[in-house]
Amino acid sequence: MIKEQIRLFCPATIANISCGFDVLGLALDSIGDEMVLRKVSSPGIKITGITGQDLPLETDKNVAGVAGMAMIKALEYKEGFEIEIHKKIKPGSGIGSSAASAAGVVWGMNQLMGSPCSDHQLVQFAMEGEKLASGSAHADNVAPAIYGGITLVRSSSPLDIIRINSPELLYASVIHPHIEIKTSDSRKILKTSISLADGIKQWGNLGALIAGLFKEDYALISRSLEDHIIEPVRSILIPGFDDIKKAALAAGALGCGISGSGPSIFALSKGGDKATEVAKAMSLELSKIKLNHDTYVSVINTKGIYILP
Amino acid sequence: MIKEQIRLFCPATIANISCGFDVLGLALDSIGDEMVLRKVSSPGIKITGITGQDLPLETDKNVAGVAGMAMIKALEYKEGFEIEIHKKIKPGSGIGSSAASAAGVVWGMNQLMGSPCSDHQLVQFAMEGEKLASGSAHADNVAPAIYGGITLVRSSSPLDIIRINSPELLYASVIHPHIEIKTSDSRKILKTSISLADGIKQWGNLGALIAGLFKEDYALISRSLEDHIIEPVRSILIPGFDDIKKAALAAGALGCGISGSGPSIFALSKGGDKATEVAKAMSLELSKIKLNHDTYVSVINTKGIYILP
Repeated sequence: MIKEQIRLFCPATIANISCGFDVLGLALDSIGDEMVLRKVSSPGIKITGITGQDLPLETDKNVAGVAGMAMIKALEYKEGFEIEIHKKIKPGSGIGSSAASAAGVVWGMNQLMGSPCSDHQLVQFAMEGEKLASGSAHADNVAPAIYGGITLVRSSSPLDIIRINSPELLYASVIHPHIEIKTSDSRKILKTSISLADGIKQWGNLGALIAGLFKEDYALISRSLEDHIIEPVRSILIPGFDDIKKAALAAGALGCGISGSGPSIFALSKGGDKATEVAKAMSLELSKIKLNHDTYVSVINTKGIYILP
Repeated sequence: MIKEQIRLFCPATIANISCGFDVLGLALDSIGDEMVLRKVSSPGIKITGITGQDLPLETDKNVAGVAGMAMIKALEYKEGFEIEIHKKIKPGSGIGSSAASAAGVVWGMNQLMGSPCSDHQLVQFAMEGEKLASGSAHADNVAPAIYGGITLVRSSSPLDIIRINSPELLYASVIHPHIEIKTSDSRKILKTSISLADGIKQWGNLGALIAGLFKEDYALISRSLEDHIIEPVRSILIPGFDDIKKAALAAGALGCGISGSGPSIFALSKGGDKATEVAKAMSLELSKIKLNHDTYVSVINTKGIYILP
């Protein structure tokens, strides 16, 4: 018996944001999944349909199923939910496809249950879904999906999430080249140690980026969007990365880098018009090397997941 | 011929502030040098007297002399200055003794010249003094001395200094145990590489600390005052460090760590009364091991260097 139903927008997210490897993330608005949740009397989670992608319907093999079950267990909830997932974010694109599903289901369940859980708790449940998807329970995509805006994960254990101010004119341009990079592979190529000198540069930049976001100082945000540690290694896996980044900066982007573990590339700009120009310039570089891709332009989504009419 | 004279307060400073190795610093108010500057017609810098410490009067061997000459050369200034330095900050204490002299002289000269230089330029001249003192031209003490408050050095080359918000109730307690640690030695014992995992913790904490300072969220400031990289190594050189830190936290400090390269230990607290209690608790630990020391309690000095009546 269906008791109540909601329809959600579950945003794509950009993790890392150049200098914030494993800690920073932001939510997008123009690209995201849709999800329908129904409160039912039968216990557990049943995934009744998935469109847009070929993903498992079995609860224990689906990130949304696993995240939802983690919440049901923690709350000792006796009834259940049916879920429909309409994927618009491609899995493996590096803009938080699994996070959108994991975060969406627990956020929606919380709504249908009368909000027994805090955002902090919802992130913990959603992280169980991320664990299924990538092998590690990271929060850098699910946190901005649930909190909205820009988030900093100070620590994963204990989980400590901080909302960072998101300047009104900050827009993201994202291009997703149609190549496959597995998150596990893009983790494997990273070195497990870094020089202290590079570490100092990285935390100097991250501190400055956070300051720039609070001060709404776009020039400072621009100077701080540097990554001397991860980008030089991971960008090798993305054809044309250097040219795309050059084109984005030449078009006036504040900064440009790899979204999450790639292959998507993001740029941040001041204003929507500039972000559109930047996206075109980035797209042109991929067209030159005949690589199919998707292009998105979005304001930072300060709401995170929300209910659709 | 003396044309004009000013008398300055040149604050002690705390560099690093736990998670901000080589990038963060703050200015104190209750401890600092006094300096008298006189504009004279004879060219160059003449140090006419130093009290409180046995330091070289020769311009090219004195940090204030070297910093002042760097400014005179850059501005192609034809006249000169006489300087009296009244040291109250002990050299080698780890609270920016050389920085107070280097920053004070250039700040004062700028006043007497009618402010031709920006704070940014003054830091660059002062860094020449720091280079004489420690072998490297670092800005993490001179920047807060000149800018006041809390500063972040995003990059030393090119120099990029950012003023960070300083919450009104933030107070520092400092104890200076009377032992000698040379800055060069405390640099030598640091490893030149760190694990990526420790790097992530460090930039997570630094980003969170900056967010905490802008949000004036004392609990967040407290959680972020962690250092997994430098403190475990350098604290070995400071007798009783672990007990002092424990005592500071037990007394209610937000955090506690090594000031600069030590041996001074700082704690941050919410409110002056709490900072006084914390200072007493820290002092007691040093008394137990019969180590002479000085104790200071100070609000964060948001003005930096200033003119005394």
